[in-house]
Amino acid sequence: MLGVCYYPEHWPEERWALDARLMREAGLDVVRIGEFAWSKMEPQEGQYDWGWLDRAIETLAAAGLRIILGTPTATPPAWLTERYPEALRVGADGRRWGHGGRRHTCPTNPSYRELGARIVSAMSERYGGHAAVIAWQIDNELSNHSTGRCVCDSCRAAFQAWCCERYGTLETLNAAWGSVFWSQSYNAWTQIPLPSDPVGGGHNPSLQLAYRRFASDVHVDLVRSQVAILRTNAPDHILTTNVAVMDDEIDWHTVAEEVDIISWDNYPHGFATPSEVAFRHQLQRGFKRQPFWVMEQQAGPINWTAYNPPTPPGQVRLWTYQALLHDASALLYFRWRACRFGQEQYHSGLLNHAARPARGYTEAQQAAAELDQLGPLERPAARVALLCSFDDAWTHQIDPHHRDFDYWNLLRGLYASLWECGIACDIVRRRAPLDGYQLVVAPAPVLIDEREAQSWRDYVRAGGTLLLTCRSFVKDQDNLWTDQLLPAGLTDLIGAEAVEWFALPPDVPTAVSGAANQSMEIPLWAETLRSNTAEVLLHYTRDYYAGQAALTRQKRGSGQALYLGAYPTAELLAWLWTQLLPEEVHDLPSGVELLPLQTGWALLNHTAAALQVTLPGRWRDRFSGETFTLSAPLEPFNLRLLEAVDREG
Amino acid sequence: MLGVCYYPEHWPEERWALDARLMREAGLDVVRIGEFAWSKMEPQEGQYDWGWLDRAIETLAAAGLRIILGTPTATPPAWLTERYPEALRVGADGRRWGHGGRRHTCPTNPSYRELGARIVSAMSERYGGHAAVIAWQIDNELSNHSTGRCVCDSCRAAFQAWCCERYGTLETLNAAWGSVFWSQSYNAWTQIPLPSDPVGGGHNPSLQLAYRRFASDVHVDLVRSQVAILRTNAPDHILTTNVAVMDDEIDWHTVAEEVDIISWDNYPHGFATPSEVAFRHQLQRGFKRQPFWVMEQQAGPINWTAYNPPTPPGQVRLWTYQALLHDASALLYFRWRACRFGQEQYHSGLLNHAARPARGYTEAQQAAAELDQLGPLERPAARVALLCSFDDAWTHQIDPHHRDFDYWNLLRGLYASLWECGIACDIVRRRAPLDGYQLVVAPAPVLIDEREAQSWRDYVRAGGTLLLTCRSFVKDQDNLWTDQLLPAGLTDLIGAEAVEWFALPPDVPTAVSGAANQSMEIPLWAETLRSNTAEVLLHYTRDYYAGQAALTRQKRGSGQALYLGAYPTAELLAWLWTQLLPEEVHDLPSGVELLPLQTGWALLNHTAAALQVTLPGRWRDRFSGETFTLSAPLEPFNLRLLEAVDREG
Amino acid sequence: MLGVCYYPEHWPEERWALDARLMREAGLDVVRIGEFAWSKMEPQEGQYDWGWLDRAIETLAAAGLRIILGTPTATPPAWLTERYPEALRVGADGRRWGHGGRRHTCPTNPSYRELGARIVSAMSERYGGHAAVIAWQIDNELSNHSTGRCVCDSCRAAFQAWCCERYGTLETLNAAWGSVFWSQSYNAWTQIPLPSDPVGGGHNPSLQLAYRRFASDVHVDLVRSQVAILRTNAPDHILTTNVAVMDDEIDWHTVAEEVDIISWDNYPHGFATPSEVAFRHQLQRGFKRQPFWVMEQQAGPINWTAYNPPTPPGQVRLWTYQALLHDASALLYFRWRACRFGQEQYHSGLLNHAARPARGYTEAQQAAAELDQLGPLERPAARVALLCSFDDAWTHQIDPHHRDFDYWNLLRGLYASLWECGIACDIVRRRAPLDGYQLVVAPAPVLIDEREAQSWRDYVRAGGTLLLTCRSFVKDQDNLWTDQLLPAGLTDLIGAEAVEWFALPPDVPTAVSGAANQSMEIPLWAETLRSNTAEVLLHYTRDYYAGQAALTRQKRGSGQALYLGAYPTAELLAWLWTQLLPEEVHDLPSGVELLPLQTGWALLNHTAAALQVTLPGRWRDRFSGETFTLSAPLEPFNLRLLEAVDREG
Repeated sequence: MLGVCYYPEHWPEERWALDARLMREAGLDVVRIGEFAWSKMEPQEGQYDWGWLDRAIETLAAAGLRIILGTPTATPPAWLTERYPEALRVGADGRRWGHGGRRHTCPTNPSYRELGARIVSAMSERYGGHAAVIAWQIDNELSNHSTGRCVCDSCRAAFQAWCCERYGTLETLNAAWGSVFWSQSYNAWTQIPLPSDPVGGGHNPSLQLAYRRFASDVHVDLVRSQVAILRTNAPDHILTTNVAVMDDEIDWHTVAEEVDIISWDNYPHGFATPSEVAFRHQLQRGFKRQPFWVMEQQAGPINWTAYNPPTPPGQVRLWTYQALLHDASALLYFRWRACRFGQEQYHSGLLNHAARPARGYTEAQQAAAELDQLGPLERPAARVALLCSFDDAWTHQIDPHHRDFDYWNLLRGLYASLWECGIACDIVRRRAPLDGYQLVVAPAPVLIDEREAQSWRDYVRAGGTLLLTCRSFVKDQDNLWTDQLLPAGLTDLIGAEAVEWFALPPDVPTAVSGAANQSMEIPLWAETLRSNTAEVLLHYTRDYYAGQAALTRQKRGSGQALYLGAYPTAELLAWLWTQLLPEEVHDLPSGVELLPLQTGWALLNHTAAALQVTLPGRWRDRFSGETFTLSAPLEPFNLRLLEAVDREG
Repeated sequence: MLGVCYYPEHWPEERWALDARLMREAGLDVVRIGEFAWSKMEPQEGQYDWGWLDRAIETLAAAGLRIILGTPTATPPAWLTERYPEALRVGADGRRWGHGGRRHTCPTNPSYRELGARIVSAMSERYGGHAAVIAWQIDNELSNHSTGRCVCDSCRAAFQAWCCERYGTLETLNAAWGSVFWSQSYNAWTQIPLPSDPVGGGHNPSLQLAYRRFASDVHVDLVRSQVAILRTNAPDHILTTNVAVMDDEIDWHTVAEEVDIISWDNYPHGFATPSEVAFRHQLQRGFKRQPFWVMEQQAGPINWTAYNPPTPPGQVRLWTYQALLHDASALLYFRWRACRFGQEQYHSGLLNHAARPARGYTEAQQAAAELDQLGPLERPAARVALLCSFDDAWTHQIDPHHRDFDYWNLLRGLYASLWECGIACDIVRRRAPLDGYQLVVAPAPVLIDEREAQSWRDYVRAGGTLLLTCRSFVKDQDNLWTDQLLPAGLTDLIGAEAVEWFALPPDVPTAVSGAANQSMEIPLWAETLRSNTAEVLLHYTRDYYAGQAALTRQKRGSGQALYLGAYPTAELLAWLWTQLLPEEVHDLPSGVELLPLQTGWALLNHTAAALQVTLPGRWRDRFSGETFTLSAPLEPFNLRLLEAVDREG
Repeated sequence: MLGVCYYPEHWPEERWALDARLMREAGLDVVRIGEFAWSKMEPQEGQYDWGWLDRAIETLAAAGLRIILGTPTATPPAWLTERYPEALRVGADGRRWGHGGRRHTCPTNPSYRELGARIVSAMSERYGGHAAVIAWQIDNELSNHSTGRCVCDSCRAAFQAWCCERYGTLETLNAAWGSVFWSQSYNAWTQIPLPSDPVGGGHNPSLQLAYRRFASDVHVDLVRSQVAILRTNAPDHILTTNVAVMDDEIDWHTVAEEVDIISWDNYPHGFATPSEVAFRHQLQRGFKRQPFWVMEQQAGPINWTAYNPPTPPGQVRLWTYQALLHDASALLYFRWRACRFGQEQYHSGLLNHAARPARGYTEAQQAAAELDQLGPLERPAARVALLCSFDDAWTHQIDPHHRDFDYWNLLRGLYASLWECGIACDIVRRRAPLDGYQLVVAPAPVLIDEREAQSWRDYVRAGGTLLLTCRSFVKDQDNLWTDQLLPAGLTDLIGAEAVEWFALPPDVPTAVSGAANQSMEIPLWAETLRSNTAEVLLHYTRDYYAGQAALTRQKRGSGQALYLGAYPTAELLAWLWTQLLPEEVHDLPSGVELLPLQTGWALLNHTAAALQVTLPGRWRDRFSGETFTLSAPLEPFNLRLLEAVDREG
């Protein structure tokens, strides 16, 4: 399902039919509209104008396009915030926002919530049964522009009520937060501050974690409230919401429970590397553990990074395939035509400002035509899983202890090292069931959860390999440090304990070595381990703790549990995968992505150079029909889909 | 006309006569006073004290000095802002300013405007007919300290009224701004925000440009209101206002229409290079296309840069000559004596704190004596013009697209490359008449103006050479992107169109080459051109667009129009000037400025090294009378004024 | 006296006795408690709960520990700021602080002051006569987290009243501040702004200095008010207050006059180098010119720097000795056990979170045992003094003129150069008596004080050596520049004057040379000197001022006064000490601290390397009894206490 994001309200009505025809000529069959058009739908409070939208939908439908409608609650009109100024959010600097951009309202404000529910109701009453409409996108990029954490008075009261709900009594809360520290104990719910209140020495980390959870819950509730309306008015439509790039202020695992499918907005130029794009596709896929949509796909230069470089030929088509190969079941390019006005004038579209087809148009057309021919691109289930938790991310962000310790960098690094070996890897919620995985990596799962610990024990006992990293099981769910040995409650499973932890300044790395005696530099973080019953795979080789364990392994039946005290560098991980998954490691040129298919391989060249990949066997390219023995050439920003050919073939 | 800035109110009255005598002994004949002395003139609201100023003027006049009076509206007294606190400006961070510095009031506030008009009236009633007074400086460094864009409630209302005035109806405004984008449409003037209101995703670029124009207009109106008073009360006096270093929040071309002469404050240590000082002199000269004044000339170390380095011997005299050679008709050193108190204690003067003559005094004295001997330094008219527009500057600042794209850097770079070749260049308003110029350079004139396009066509047809750079004629006057081919409305003139534009990250430059095959690196920005009828002078040599045009030329009769798609580097421009102005290019040591005089050359050595300049012919130095053949030696921080000598001479 | 900081309120009551026993087993005999427990002592306004504290004190006392009680005024409870919200301080950004950290109240707020006095009274009434209590710590780290300069309305009024008190009349104030500059003159006390009010061009430096003095006085008054209560209620107890690392918002010389002993919190990982730790010990020692306490001593990794590196074995013991050798008469480790909650979770303790003894425990125990054996570590009086003044620091901070000029860096550099030579140096208040010193260094004493000048003249006349640096005696006590020759009033003493000063950009250093002709690079600052009667020891060798004097010496009887116009680099100072103190200069490996003892030397190796130190003579190590001739080996992070042994010994 390929499509495009379209704003009929940005263009003369007489242009719509031509646009629709050109979309179809590009092989697109779905179009998203409406998500920023509140002021067009409801120009004054309670006065609706559906005529233009009726006609737009009819025009698009008439051309054979299916429609995704966006609820417009991300862009409340000027009349709304003029009349209900307290609906405007307040930033962490204490300033109330204004009209003029987007996401400027507070999700706990009753006026905003009521008027939002009203427009969603009105819209879905009108289009909830429309034949051409297939899905609804709820709001748009919730919490984008770092809007996930409002600190208005409404949020303050809501947070205090949330605390009351969670803890029941102030005694419980005071104990759970250790608020005796620095005389912070509360004897009224109204005393509980927001973490944006200026203070000396920072805020209590337990309060900070509570507030982050609250702010996430607020957005989950916003989604839930729109879902409730849409389920009633549009019972046959698919419900989704689109995740903005880099947004981690909301626990998307929880949001995902509310909607039918997760979609996200993929702008690779906002990321560092091709492996990060893959990482983010998998992250989205993991939110529901099912295929996802790319609701917005970069289709040319964008406008919001520092330099906004060009997209070379082949790039848009390659991104399209990468998304589909990572399990996207729909992909919509953003946007149809470069806009003549507003904040995204410099954002390219499939057509340029002058309505001429840009390179993206041609490549989208090519991909659509090819995909019609190719049929499904089925991939086998991944045998490796990387665990992920927004609670862990927030906890580490609240107190990274080492300035450069970043939870997401840790996950990205782990994923990238697997990606570079061509090892497929799911990214799943920490509490997900682990059946079927050969290897499960738990990166810095700092919050203790005994149920998960039990599930991990079961997983190992059943033959799985569990790799825990440093900073595992240190704090309870309220962000209080354990008084047990580390990792708390897991020392039996790993057969070892973490004795001392070292935050390593950039100019003072440490080093580890294994049996084969290669020495590897370790930056950032090191924990010295005391093995009780475990085997020591790596030990430190520097300073006064030279000889102490850095990586341990305890076998349990056919399973094993490893604990890695040293920060997992690319070098260390490359070595480790050859130990744990020797048969899965491929030797690939830098920038080449290898993805296993049911019947062969996909090989994606994310570089501007022509490359050669060695693959034992004989292969036929599904695009060109060419066959290759042992190695396949890869053109710049191009891919091959290789099917095994028997020797006689 | 040489002079000095003096603050009699800072020194004991008994010192004044001695100061006046020392000024005259230095050869100075004009003195600026009064511009910060509001609280001395009007110690309480409505109570005036002119005695001290009467005596100061008499003392200075008695010594033979002519006087420039500054209106004191840049420093409203404490009683004013205490009584009318809403007269205090509000910064972009939403904080109301306080008393204690300067420029702390809002130019739209009625109380400030009324009290300002009152002190200007009272002052000009008293001194408007004084024989020793020759000129008035209106206010001081309007919008210095980035004060040009107040966002108080008064400004908000004034901006909304300005919008109403400009657009007439909200329908017109909504259409002109494309405010349908993100539901920003307004159905009341009072809904229109200020760009300092915090938002997500930034403000609409059309609104931003409108606000910048409004803020500039406010200051023009402030000047106009003082001009009206002074024209009545001081009909025979010259009216000016002084431009602060680096200030581009106000459209000085428009301010210049209100006053008799433009003056500016030249602090070279606030700039990067000697060519930038020249650039800024020419910029000021261009505001009215006539000679200008340097109202404040650095005369020793200053106090507001990061390091405030010393001024070596010769430097102050050299700066003096540089200003006069760029057409300054008056120059006043800042300041007479280093101040014992206040924010500028570390700012040097012609006298030091202890009243001893500093190096600046001696050099000013030397320059004054020499100038008496030399007579006028007449220069021929420049044959090259660089076009300049504050509207273009603001538009690029609002959305540079590439972080390092800076309109003023572009202009400075173009000017510097001409300066390094010794080619004189005027800097004039985009809409200025172009008669008489051999070459006109239009740097990134992003806003489309059909009248100007027509005037450029006429200019080319009449035999001129027009050089347009990348980013020409992209948006309409309301900052909406054109739907025409680029440069919109100029493709016929240049015989080509700009097909695609690339923002180039710092580590990914591109390259161009011409017929002679030299390759030149291009950073920042590249547009690929499609030539219809034009000749291709440079083409790209890298990446997938290798071979596409980077510089085109279309001849029209004896004229020609060039379009340069590649960002104009120093290297590219050096090559281009040798193509376009071969007879004007000089080979000069770095740091030497060559300026043509009616009867010879001025050669300024802005370096600490002794240099040698090659000049075919025989020359006599007007200072020393020495003659040189073929080459002239230049002492550090010194200059030569060379007259041609016939072979027999 | 060794001890530890303990928070009984953080741990179950049943743990207290075990903790107390473990403290005693470590050899500790003093414990600080109570300083953050206001909400435990007074859970609601006027309701006291002393039971837990009674029991904690009894438990600790029963184990043989002596107790230092902290007044809890640094952490007002939530009920206080909820009921008296105006008690919350306001930051320089204009935002009122909130509950949730510490130091969030304003020291001029009457409610805070009254409730603070009440809890101190109640606490001291209860424990002021307790046999186990030996001392009181007033508040905690006054002005830590940059809280020393509140700008709430109460402070504004208090500052205006302070000005009225200091200057008497507005005429006097206007003259003293030169407020005629930029029309800043005041005709009502209420017009006087705070330096945090946003302005253009910065605030008047005289006002800024006045405000800094006021803010310091406010804290002195806070201390004084608690002292008054405690003198009444706890007449036999020692009174102290603890100085936070890096805190210079308060004039500690003045605070020191109020208390019996100065204590400070020593976290070497917050500093740059071991010499800076020594510098800070001496700084504290100088506040009262008597032994001091280390109230909090880092005892493992801390949690508030960028990287929080580990502490290698030996480090905690070495820091302990360093403190004692610099005259600490008590040292308490911070903290007893790593905390499970709150903002300092990652801060280590002598016990770790799981109550296991960390390395710090063992080393503290070792040090305590050794010290029992060693007896007193007496040092001879230092023969060098470095003068220090908070007024000078503030004045330079207000207008450093050169971005990198930093008063404290200047002092640290001077101290470090002496430290590296093994020369003991006191750091004393500028106005301190100088008897007994062989050399006194006055670094950039920018404020003129004629009484001090006279005392310096007397000191030189009596045979002392005085070294003045650049930027001496430039401004009067109200921060007005002198109109005298520089250094004002000292030109007779030094026999020279400073003619011109140069702020040197980083890429343009200058150079000096002396008789022996070695050339030394000089960054930052250079003053050219004109010698009247002085000898020139160094002259500049670069640029147009080559040959002018950079260091002069005038002998007066057996004394001498030197003026160093060039910024004192490490290289220049190393040379200078060999000239001035040839017999005191030792050649030490980098990172080794040498401290003279009455009977020998202490040698501290602050590095991770084994080093060798050359010491003519024969020495016995008081720890091991080993003897060494000529040189002594030093283990990493270890020390030797060497006693001279006669040749036969």
